[in-house]
Amino acid sequence: MKNQDFSQLRIILNETSHPGNIGATARAMKIMDIKNLTLVKPKQFPDTVAYARSSGATDILDNAKICQDLDTALKEQQLIFATSARSRQISLPTHTPKEAANRIHSALAGGIKVAILFGNEQHGLSNTDLLKCQHQIIIPTSEEYSSLNLAAAVQITCYEIFTAQENKPLETQTNDFANAEQIDQLFTHTISTLSALEYLEDKRSSKIALKIKAMLQQRQFTSQQVQILRGVLTQINKKIGNHDYT
Amino acid sequence: MKNQDFSQLRIILNETSHPGNIGATARAMKIMDIKNLTLVKPKQFPDTVAYARSSGATDILDNAKICQDLDTALKEQQLIFATSARSRQISLPTHTPKEAANRIHSALAGGIKVAILFGNEQHGLSNTDLLKCQHQIIIPTSEEYSSLNLAAAVQITCYEIFTAQENKPLETQTNDFANAEQIDQLFTHTISTLSALEYLEDKRSSKIALKIKAMLQQRQFTSQQVQILRGVLTQINKKIGNHDYT
Repeated sequence: MKNQDFSQLRIILNETSHPGNIGATARAMKIMDIKNLTLVKPKQFPDTVAYARSSGATDILDNAKICQDLDTALKEQQLIFATSARSRQISLPTHTPKEAANRIHSALAGGIKVAILFGNEQHGLSNTDLLKCQHQIIIPTSEEYSSLNLAAAVQITCYEIFTAQENKPLETQTNDFANAEQIDQLFTHTISTLSALEYLEDKRSSKIALKIKAMLQQRQFTSQQVQILRGVLTQINKKIGNHDYT
Repeated sequence: MKNQDFSQLRIILNETSHPGNIGATARAMKIMDIKNLTLVKPKQFPDTVAYARSSGATDILDNAKICQDLDTALKEQQLIFATSARSRQISLPTHTPKEAANRIHSALAGGIKVAILFGNEQHGLSNTDLLKCQHQIIIPTSEEYSSLNLAAAVQITCYEIFTAQENKPLETQTNDFANAEQIDQLFTHTISTLSALEYLEDKRSSKIALKIKAMLQQRQFTSQQVQILRGVLTQINKKIGNHDYT
């Protein structure tokens, strides 16, 4: 197999219940040369079961980042894929693992930081979690039985990435994608400005705020575009005499 | 997903050590609509761990065939794929899971019984086991780490079969492939004849016998061709006055 650079690719497990699945995930990643793992609020970790199931992929567990919330885990990420076995109400652009693998290769070739997010074993990813992502990977499964094991989902996804064709970056991607933290700051700035404009309450969780959030997160703004937008917001605040947030 | 007919497809696990892997295999199969499982000499089965790990794919475990040797398991199979993470000395035609999936679809479309054989967790498949197969699936993996979990290997293989394109049976396959039992009878007949001819000893396990065996197994003879070959052998035996085996 060709030597591929997956140093900017990260697997993120959100609120995993079973340490065995964390170990099996490390094994599933390592066999496909993918090594960066983040664990968000794992129920039990570090854990001997996780290490046993990793079958020697202990370096991945040793180096795993542990975060207490998803926002922290996503902060630096520029292109975020959510995975699920089924489609949800949230309308992210969806891809098969194969299609996603091609996109991921193009992005990595452009130096973009890519994360793939996997939900909890019982509940998967919530709508709030999905809203933090730009794309969704749907793993094709049986219509009558859809209980895909977490580590099996990681295995299929990593396998597709590992075996994807050496890519053809379709549009030459320049890595100026804003990361999740920049987008979040833009969102906060936007909400506070809209509130100063008396367009809406200053609540990040209102229905309309969430719609605005989804819009900001899914448009894949570049850092430069974020700067321009925040410049406009700052200017609006100045003009209306709001000095809370400039 | 389109409704596919995998009723002539069978997953065979050879001498599996851990019942957890049997359960995880059932789950990996069921989520891809593949339901026929054979267990050859499982170390521990039936087993509660297997049922727990199957996550509701209990019908597959309930209906699993249990065999005490591989020959019995393969007897009726017409097209047999061995799987391994690495290439071995035995020179079977090798395929990626993707390529194999296409072949399997063509074969199933022609009504051919297809089996995919997975070895033991520690030792994989022996050379003797591989010789009973016509093709080999090699799952691409990292160069530095190749500890692919058994159920993960089943998952990748079944996923590729499930997602393979609705096929285009390239050459219209007519299902007259001889099964493993017919090939074995042809082999026995051949060895006894060659021995009667004083070409070799009547030993099925000599080096030359194994080479002949590999040749017979890999040529994918039809039942009709096997009949013709055995007719020739019978005639040879008659002519040289050997009545042991006619």
